[in-house]
Amino acid sequence: MSHNTFGKLLRMTTWGESHGPMIGAVVDGCPPLIPVTEAEIQVFLDKRRPGRSRFTTQRREPDKVRIVSGVFTDEESGNQVTTGAPISLIVENTDQRSKDYSEIKDKFRPGHADFTYQQKYGIRDYRGGGRSSARETAMRVAAGAIARKIVPAMDIRGALVQIGPHSIDYSRWDWNEVANNPFFCPDCEMAKLWEEYLDEVRLSGSSIGAVVEIMASGVPAGLGEPLFSRLDQDIASGLMSIPAVKGVEIGAGFAAASLTGEENADEIRIKNGAPDFTSNNAGGILGGISTGQAIIARFAVKPTSSILRPGKTIDKFGSETEIMTKGRHDPCVGIRAVPVGEAMMALTLADHYLRHRAQIGKGV
Amino acid sequence: MSHNTFGKLLRMTTWGESHGPMIGAVVDGCPPLIPVTEAEIQVFLDKRRPGRSRFTTQRREPDKVRIVSGVFTDEESGNQVTTGAPISLIVENTDQRSKDYSEIKDKFRPGHADFTYQQKYGIRDYRGGGRSSARETAMRVAAGAIARKIVPAMDIRGALVQIGPHSIDYSRWDWNEVANNPFFCPDCEMAKLWEEYLDEVRLSGSSIGAVVEIMASGVPAGLGEPLFSRLDQDIASGLMSIPAVKGVEIGAGFAAASLTGEENADEIRIKNGAPDFTSNNAGGILGGISTGQAIIARFAVKPTSSILRPGKTIDKFGSETEIMTKGRHDPCVGIRAVPVGEAMMALTLADHYLRHRAQIGKGV
Amino acid sequence: MSHNTFGKLLRMTTWGESHGPMIGAVVDGCPPLIPVTEAEIQVFLDKRRPGRSRFTTQRREPDKVRIVSGVFTDEESGNQVTTGAPISLIVENTDQRSKDYSEIKDKFRPGHADFTYQQKYGIRDYRGGGRSSARETAMRVAAGAIARKIVPAMDIRGALVQIGPHSIDYSRWDWNEVANNPFFCPDCEMAKLWEEYLDEVRLSGSSIGAVVEIMASGVPAGLGEPLFSRLDQDIASGLMSIPAVKGVEIGAGFAAASLTGEENADEIRIKNGAPDFTSNNAGGILGGISTGQAIIARFAVKPTSSILRPGKTIDKFGSETEIMTKGRHDPCVGIRAVPVGEAMMALTLADHYLRHRAQIGKGV
Amino acid sequence: MSHNTFGKLLRMTTWGESHGPMIGAVVDGCPPLIPVTEAEIQVFLDKRRPGRSRFTTQRREPDKVRIVSGVFTDEESGNQVTTGAPISLIVENTDQRSKDYSEIKDKFRPGHADFTYQQKYGIRDYRGGGRSSARETAMRVAAGAIARKIVPAMDIRGALVQIGPHSIDYSRWDWNEVANNPFFCPDCEMAKLWEEYLDEVRLSGSSIGAVVEIMASGVPAGLGEPLFSRLDQDIASGLMSIPAVKGVEIGAGFAAASLTGEENADEIRIKNGAPDFTSNNAGGILGGISTGQAIIARFAVKPTSSILRPGKTIDKFGSETEIMTKGRHDPCVGIRAVPVGEAMMALTLADHYLRHRAQIGKGV
Repeated sequence: MSHNTFGKLLRMTTWGESHGPMIGAVVDGCPPLIPVTEAEIQVFLDKRRPGRSRFTTQRREPDKVRIVSGVFTDEESGNQVTTGAPISLIVENTDQRSKDYSEIKDKFRPGHADFTYQQKYGIRDYRGGGRSSARETAMRVAAGAIARKIVPAMDIRGALVQIGPHSIDYSRWDWNEVANNPFFCPDCEMAKLWEEYLDEVRLSGSSIGAVVEIMASGVPAGLGEPLFSRLDQDIASGLMSIPAVKGVEIGAGFAAASLTGEENADEIRIKNGAPDFTSNNAGGILGGISTGQAIIARFAVKPTSSILRPGKTIDKFGSETEIMTKGRHDPCVGIRAVPVGEAMMALTLADHYLRHRAQIGKGV
Repeated sequence: MSHNTFGKLLRMTTWGESHGPMIGAVVDGCPPLIPVTEAEIQVFLDKRRPGRSRFTTQRREPDKVRIVSGVFTDEESGNQVTTGAPISLIVENTDQRSKDYSEIKDKFRPGHADFTYQQKYGIRDYRGGGRSSARETAMRVAAGAIARKIVPAMDIRGALVQIGPHSIDYSRWDWNEVANNPFFCPDCEMAKLWEEYLDEVRLSGSSIGAVVEIMASGVPAGLGEPLFSRLDQDIASGLMSIPAVKGVEIGAGFAAASLTGEENADEIRIKNGAPDFTSNNAGGILGGISTGQAIIARFAVKPTSSILRPGKTIDKFGSETEIMTKGRHDPCVGIRAVPVGEAMMALTLADHYLRHRAQIGKGV
Repeated sequence: MSHNTFGKLLRMTTWGESHGPMIGAVVDGCPPLIPVTEAEIQVFLDKRRPGRSRFTTQRREPDKVRIVSGVFTDEESGNQVTTGAPISLIVENTDQRSKDYSEIKDKFRPGHADFTYQQKYGIRDYRGGGRSSARETAMRVAAGAIARKIVPAMDIRGALVQIGPHSIDYSRWDWNEVANNPFFCPDCEMAKLWEEYLDEVRLSGSSIGAVVEIMASGVPAGLGEPLFSRLDQDIASGLMSIPAVKGVEIGAGFAAASLTGEENADEIRIKNGAPDFTSNNAGGILGGISTGQAIIARFAVKPTSSILRPGKTIDKFGSETEIMTKGRHDPCVGIRAVPVGEAMMALTLADHYLRHRAQIGKGV
Repeated sequence: MSHNTFGKLLRMTTWGESHGPMIGAVVDGCPPLIPVTEAEIQVFLDKRRPGRSRFTTQRREPDKVRIVSGVFTDEESGNQVTTGAPISLIVENTDQRSKDYSEIKDKFRPGHADFTYQQKYGIRDYRGGGRSSARETAMRVAAGAIARKIVPAMDIRGALVQIGPHSIDYSRWDWNEVANNPFFCPDCEMAKLWEEYLDEVRLSGSSIGAVVEIMASGVPAGLGEPLFSRLDQDIASGLMSIPAVKGVEIGAGFAAASLTGEENADEIRIKNGAPDFTSNNAGGILGGISTGQAIIARFAVKPTSSILRPGKTIDKFGSETEIMTKGRHDPCVGIRAVPVGEAMMALTLADHYLRHRAQIGKGV
């Protein structure tokens, strides 16, 4: 992990600003001979794309991805496959409205990176948030689409499980519902309530936080490294690297603080000839290493900091002032964080899959 | 981050097993001319040492640390100081009771790393948990004692804020109380309740989870890197690397999911000529970079998996069986996680302090 | 160092194939507020550009570089400066002649990476060498142009000192001559001889090896890390990463094997109040750390493997065959390696400059 | 590579000073279930041990290695094997003669790291060279002994091929001779000449440089990474990290500068059903990736800087002075560099073997 690079053996480096000519990612260390097309990647980008419903920012970007290196046509199959060389992905920025930036050029929007970027670097590209814009996450989703293909049998899915005070009912969880509403909500009852609630938030010019849950199934036992590249540690690192995330938990998570040893213990039995756990408070990870159960992680997303109400702040000259962020924003940025969370999970697991192969010498 | 190494520029590598001859850490990348003595390090090790009260494991280890490289006497001051060379720290294991390990040699203790280590490596040092023993965290505390000295003015303190269902009352928070009870509890009322509650847990042979809070003050604005070595990300990574931790949050954390944009916004004013935030839901970090406010992180520790009740499990031959872990264990392993959490915070911040100096060219 | 990334704190990642749509580099970790323009970078690219004389490949590429992220206009100075965000550099491939690749598609050209890429990856983009084409070095030169600006007062220059059996006379060294001939030759007499000699080589369809010398002056004392990121080690690593390089030496280099301790010793005196060495067999580096003297490195470049004579080889089906590489090639690829060597030296020194600042806390 | 750590997946971190209580290495990332004993490692340490003949330093150290972590008894075989946990190796320093260091405490010995360490760190452990002592290389040899066991069928051998002006006759090369003389010389005729020559050098209080050649056979085709972790690059990095090394070359090396394309080309044929090269100017590496031929590297070692003649230098107060290094030293430090070079080659190849498995998914 370093500056703008994520991963150790499968490495994603993202670059680009919200209002520059383009954004991109370089995915390095990918195994060769993996079939990959722009269309496959586009499917995931489209899930994250803004403007899909009235609950996400109205910025209109086609977000068309181009693969400009690292693939070649396999003569035998006729498929376009990876060659083992770095895969360069590019998305052009098309909707860079020539706004008036005088309002945010010198003032620090509360809750944004404006203040800290200026403190650290002494300069910042303020147009649309520049480098700190959530637009960067489009490239994570694109890179994640490649990562998904590296681990055979792995399936990664995400869902929104809480908006503001309204949590889903886990007993109603239905993965099929996730695609049926604009919230990636697995509980169709709750989706209805959210629609009403979020309209209210949106129309009042406010915003609200959320919780996302990511599940990875088909992950073999044995992935992870002891102590300082624990699988749970690196998943936490990946999810916490998503803008606006303020908390991460694995399995029972914070609820484990209230459990006794008996309640928390996931006992082990043999089922169909294979080890099987009677519960999954561990979230599929013990001692930093995957158990073969589903890996479960959740992360909390803070409310969008840009709201249609004036807030107290200072400017870069050290004077007190007020600011109100106009423009197109997500009332609940947690919604679009779902495909981003899936991508970070995929990248983390694929990286560990390669690391495992290195030390142990075989796939798992 | 790699296998057994934590950090990028300030790198701690730990080694050793619970029942081997010794455990150790190598701290590399430390700036030169920093005064450091074994006695200073010992202070922090003693806070983590087992057997300090009836609420922690009764294993008796003096845990005396030796510095065997990387320091030299500064001629001018007469102090022992770092030389910029790797600092090797060693603690001998003295209380390796020659137990009968036949019970755990082939059986997987639920909640422990036994199953996953065996799956991954095909072998494990089962004596006292071997490499996965929490004993390794002693070396983190030792290394953390050095890290604390790298960032001028930085002060890192930790406290236990929840045991089982019993959370402290934040309005009663008093840092001075932390040293007055065996729980690192800042709320003297709650400490009494915990004493009673934990005696119950302990005598019943059970265990219970906990939540730890770490605060770092005196951290300058500007530490952190955008996107993939965000300060919050690396803090989450460091805390999640502690055995038994299942969740991490920064500032408002998971509570931010229930907040509106207005409630969550930390407005900025000028106070005594410097930027000052009217609240700290951000936990001292915006856009992955420190704001200059106190950095606040919390982590959830699961209940000790070793309990005095038989549990269902399997053995390494694939047969179903039962196991009951005898021996000396912590009823609430969260207590001794407090100094470990402080150490990981110190190591993370010192690493980022060096990284910041590299890119920006001056201290902050 | 990893796959396609060079450097630890200043990191260059290159991507792209010889006959893909474009090639590029991402430079990450660059300090902010450093003025940088496309025109400045272009100067160095033009030195490496093919087709400048009859002694380099006749492939015609304008090699126009674009900076598509990581820079912004500094309000005060009006200059375009770095922002601390990753700098993405792109060069479009324009001269991708639609050649007939049937000859090299299945056959391994001796001396090229064809055989080993196929062995490792099971597939390769054979068009113009694909990823292993020396075209990739254009991006190193572009990145190196940025690296040069990071270390104040540093000046990096390179020269060709040997072609085939013909070495320059060091007593005639004149840096001003380097720009006066198509060989970057500092000895104007030798440049004439080389012209004649290389015409012969070229017209016979053969090729020849060379030696390049790089000198970095203005490098402060103290850069480097002990033992495993020694400055000489990392310079060797950087220069050996250039395609076709077979040897690297620092200061006296291999000649030091024939020297006695007395002959090799660089004695130290005080000159103008500062330490001064009476000779520089060390090449400016002692114990892996810079002395403040000029840093001197040389590297040997093998002859271009593509020659106009048929050679014995095998094809990917395991049959013996012959191959003759037609097309546009450099008779002495060492010539164009000069600006590439300068770039790798600049990147290595700038990286170590940042590393030094990190550990020592101030510029040097 | 970082400070005191070598390798990416197989990582060796060394620590300790010449006159501290002990020196050590942590080897991390080693695959599990590899049999390893102290006795096996000791064999290699004994080859490097000082005082084996009158041609190496008379410091007497038993250099007994202890493995204090990372191994366990395999129940099935009864062997001590690696567990995948970090392997900590320790060697106690026993012969720390309490010398009078007043001579070297403040003065910088020419050719040593004294000046640069003081410049960089502002302090140094001057006793016996402290951290910069060649004593550190004992730990590399110990770690290398483990690395040798990771790649099946790999065999690594080294020899001294030049002392001062006297190069061996390659036509007389006999690996069996290497153990028959105190120089690791494969040419028994030359060994006799060297004995005479080196006695002269030794008795005159002088020292002399040397060239070492390392050969790795049994290395499968496919190891290496394109462009920035090329196998030749990382071998050069490893060998150049050895103290006193001033040059590294692969295959034909610097001689390639004088070769034509025809002379340099290693043509490929099929022999016994496998690819076979008619020559090995490439030194077993093409495009940064191993060909399956023997890997050949050479490195130049400068003469020992400590000689029994006074030299001009300065002290740390900036005054001009003279110094003569008394004490026990190697007249030709290149001799003992042979086992160190073997170790660095073993570590580099084993690291790349693991890296290859990661990306390609199977052994090679």
